[in-house]
Amino acid sequence: MSSCTATYRLYDDKADFHKKAESIAVGMTVGSWTELPQAKRESMQKHLGQVLKVYVHEPEGVQPGERYADVTIAYPDVNFSKDIPALLVTVFGKISMDGRIKLNHLGFSDEYLSAFPGPKFGIKGIRDRLGVHNRPLLMSIFKSVIGLDLDELRDQFTRQALGGVDLIKDDEILFDNPLTPIEKRVEVCMRAAEAAEKETGKKLLYAANLTGPTSALRQQALRAIDAGANALLFNVLSYGYDVLHELSSDSAINVPIAAHPALAGAFYPSPHYGISASVLLGQLMRLAGADLVLFPSPYGSVTMPKEENMAIRDELLSSTLPLRTSMPVPSAGIHPGLVPMIIRDFGTDVVINAGGGIHGHPMGTEAGGKAFVQAIEAAQKLISLADYAAAGHPELQKALDTWGGER
Amino acid sequence: MSSCTATYRLYDDKADFHKKAESIAVGMTVGSWTELPQAKRESMQKHLGQVLKVYVHEPEGVQPGERYADVTIAYPDVNFSKDIPALLVTVFGKISMDGRIKLNHLGFSDEYLSAFPGPKFGIKGIRDRLGVHNRPLLMSIFKSVIGLDLDELRDQFTRQALGGVDLIKDDEILFDNPLTPIEKRVEVCMRAAEAAEKETGKKLLYAANLTGPTSALRQQALRAIDAGANALLFNVLSYGYDVLHELSSDSAINVPIAAHPALAGAFYPSPHYGISASVLLGQLMRLAGADLVLFPSPYGSVTMPKEENMAIRDELLSSTLPLRTSMPVPSAGIHPGLVPMIIRDFGTDVVINAGGGIHGHPMGTEAGGKAFVQAIEAAQKLISLADYAAAGHPELQKALDTWGGER
Repeated sequence: MSSCTATYRLYDDKADFHKKAESIAVGMTVGSWTELPQAKRESMQKHLGQVLKVYVHEPEGVQPGERYADVTIAYPDVNFSKDIPALLVTVFGKISMDGRIKLNHLGFSDEYLSAFPGPKFGIKGIRDRLGVHNRPLLMSIFKSVIGLDLDELRDQFTRQALGGVDLIKDDEILFDNPLTPIEKRVEVCMRAAEAAEKETGKKLLYAANLTGPTSALRQQALRAIDAGANALLFNVLSYGYDVLHELSSDSAINVPIAAHPALAGAFYPSPHYGISASVLLGQLMRLAGADLVLFPSPYGSVTMPKEENMAIRDELLSSTLPLRTSMPVPSAGIHPGLVPMIIRDFGTDVVINAGGGIHGHPMGTEAGGKAFVQAIEAAQKLISLADYAAAGHPELQKALDTWGGER
Repeated sequence: MSSCTATYRLYDDKADFHKKAESIAVGMTVGSWTELPQAKRESMQKHLGQVLKVYVHEPEGVQPGERYADVTIAYPDVNFSKDIPALLVTVFGKISMDGRIKLNHLGFSDEYLSAFPGPKFGIKGIRDRLGVHNRPLLMSIFKSVIGLDLDELRDQFTRQALGGVDLIKDDEILFDNPLTPIEKRVEVCMRAAEAAEKETGKKLLYAANLTGPTSALRQQALRAIDAGANALLFNVLSYGYDVLHELSSDSAINVPIAAHPALAGAFYPSPHYGISASVLLGQLMRLAGADLVLFPSPYGSVTMPKEENMAIRDELLSSTLPLRTSMPVPSAGIHPGLVPMIIRDFGTDVVINAGGGIHGHPMGTEAGGKAFVQAIEAAQKLISLADYAAAGHPELQKALDTWGGER
């Protein structure tokens, strides 16, 4: 029987967790079991949820509030349609509201996965588009763009591009607006990208933010692509994973999609409630087809515990799924001094992503990008940042002086 | 300057909450302020967020972990498009991930509201359709329907309908499936409803569950309506509020929509993180156009604190919004003994909603419905349930014996 699985952590000082697990497995599938006549049970067996695992954590002297169980339930695929809303409602619809319970992991059956093409480009596809295969990528974020006009936007774009970044993304709070409507800013920015490429020799992806009514997103994406967009940004959690899935699996939308984690903090930080970061920003983003996934790093200003970051990375890169990988983009408060540590933690398949760490460089935005390029070069050559800065890289030196050196 | 507002509760043992509020107001709008040249400030002023209120809760002897502030920020409407994803990303996108912060309230400007027609029917429209104006409505929920075929579904529908309920809703975990595809079950159930109406003299709304791919929901709704559906059920949180908004404001979808709270528990129960129940299930559901809103009651099996329930009710019914009201449907574990208390708490404009409390009646599903009808009659006549049961209402008597009497 093909099933998807869900693993929960339940906190309760006294509950019989085995009984609780059984009641979830029955209650969220066939509804009742012991009352069913034998003949009915036979026909219902294929719909019945199964308790796969109950691990109870109650060490001697466990404190009130700290007794929990990790419970894994299998939900037969025959019970729900092959889409993310159906899976989420099945495994965490009603029970999300029933006491201290957090959804910590999902398991997708091959049958369920068959409905999901996953990322259209993935890490390899993005690297192919950029022609960069052996180093981390560098992304820069537009900053303070609300209220800017097209000339100001172009100017900021050019300064970022000349710093040598590989990707530039819209600010996620830039919505479609009369000053810089998406097609216009794509035209302006892609022209600026071409001009910059002549100086830097580097290709550049610009991820334009898809916003507005759900039913108009596809057309908006196509108009942006017609205008030259070679990537898109999307606030997935404010629209729903199925919307990303439909966009990413649409053959006409033939550019990489970067998923922004806006609103994710409404789900993952509590130990007792919600959905873990690795499900939200790892498993579901990849399943829904995000080519790049942004999330708070363990290092910077808005942080997430390192083990959660590593769990996200593992889900985005795992070879156990028959889907292309998604590029991890640990974000927020990143400065050049952190680059070697990011590479140690994530490996080469990572995007170094910075906003303030580029625009806030004392020598300007272009120098801010260069400092990161130099930091990546140093890390790739296994040279300390301090040594590399001293060897004729003043932008990196200034960045280290400003935000601190290698950690 | 027209603005929407957001009120947060921030927990921190030491933070300068006024400074923190200022940094949210600036950071989530113009990005930076003190560094801007004077001329730029003038043009940016209309985009700048404003701190409206900072209330710091730190009574003498406040314990670690219990110092908090309630902070209200105004976000200029000019910064975001008039849709729910844009508002949520603006007010709770990045900052949802930045420490202990919960979104507790929203304030909608008239300008923002102008894009939202709200519920198409609302409480009055639903009552008009049913011809019932002076009492709480009664809803029954299909139970254990996974794996049933059309005959079994019709049989369960009929037993519910003959009990005298006003509304019957699909189980939210019933997705489109080969055994009971939505159009077929609508046809079968609406025929059963007509037959039952001849016996009960009561009109009946049947809310069929919209499921499957986002882009196909509208067509699915229209097919269901063509097949006779006179209401729809929708798992809003698994799809996104904008999808509900688009469905509810579509003139062709001319039946009431009931919003199910599946997944809501991933957001609201933590005091430190997430989005309050009154925002999720009150403000945003009504804004997005839900005619009825289900949520866990304070009384039954899956519970929510009573003050949160009352806050949801207040948002659904508030006369300060230029939108039709939404009908509150406190749910889960409701039995007839609770009816007088529900009416005391909610007033007459409420749906008494039961699943197990109807199907689990020892005399059967039909008797289960009748017991609720009798409980509502008693409460309306200000007769105690015990007295009314004794006066020739054996179904009510049995229900009180089974689940307990009036609370």
